[in-house]
Amino acid sequence: MLILGIDPGLGTTGWGIISADGNRLSHVANGQIRTDAKAPLAQRLLALDTALTTLILTHRPGGAAVEEVFVNANPQSTLKLGQARGVCLLNAARANLDVGEYAARLVKKSVVGVGNASKDQIHAMVGRLLPGAAIAGPDAADALAVAITHAHHQATARRISR
Amino acid sequence: MLILGIDPGLGTTGWGIISADGNRLSHVANGQIRTDAKAPLAQRLLALDTALTTLILTHRPGGAAVEEVFVNANPQSTLKLGQARGVCLLNAARANLDVGEYAARLVKKSVVGVGNASKDQIHAMVGRLLPGAAIAGPDAADALAVAITHAHHQATARRISR
Repeated sequence: MLILGIDPGLGTTGWGIISADGNRLSHVANGQIRTDAKAPLAQRLLALDTALTTLILTHRPGGAAVEEVFVNANPQSTLKLGQARGVCLLNAARANLDVGEYAARLVKKSVVGVGNASKDQIHAMVGRLLPGAAIAGPDAADALAVAITHAHHQATARRISR
Repeated sequence: MLILGIDPGLGTTGWGIISADGNRLSHVANGQIRTDAKAPLAQRLLALDTALTTLILTHRPGGAAVEEVFVNANPQSTLKLGQARGVCLLNAARANLDVGEYAARLVKKSVVGVGNASKDQIHAMVGRLLPGAAIAGPDAADALAVAITHAHHQATARRISR
């Protein structure tokens, strides 16, 4: 099954698609969607929506995962992130995908082994877990990490249910 | 021109459509979109999106207006509101509508005459400005108030540009 991981942001949304066959994972694609900071907010959300819709139609993932949001101390940042995140979740629901939500600590623990891993450690470990992946940037690395976490949890859930 | 006013919320989104012919305003329709608090977040956003899309296709407004968000002290509430607001703005942009954003104080001042008007005062004054409107509830009243504010500002802008 293909899993789409998303790291939402109004300025940059990272995305990554992996193929998960039980515990065997491989890289499919990843990238970062940037919106024009000078455009009106509604237009930026539309640009994000269009890019995600195209992505989902192109790759037809069977599942999706998004990081649970670290609620920022700055309410204006939280609001911006919320607006972008709403568009991401809507896209997954519109494509009839169940969305797994994972706390940042759990993602770090699943991928690096420790809950307080740095961005660089995540990037490096995602590269090792998905050999051959050219990772577009830190937000794409985070998105791939969320997809990997989702794959691990689904594999565990299947083992338990057997 | 028809103007769509929106008061976004994850639980309840108010909407109102008015017809504006210069300073002459009349009521067209209003309502409140509720989402199921027990449904997954992505499904709630999809329900909101579907309702708004239907609304815009039915009435074909020529402009839209949304209240600028009062950023809540509770970051989780801000995040929820942001996610719903993102879906509302996206719908307006998708329908190629310019979106006016107005601070709550300005809306109250435009409709009631004072920046600290209560919900009840807004409801009563909207009912007086739009005779014959059966207002679905406080969120619908707020949405109509935002639409009225947008109409006033557009009329003023036209007068100035003449």
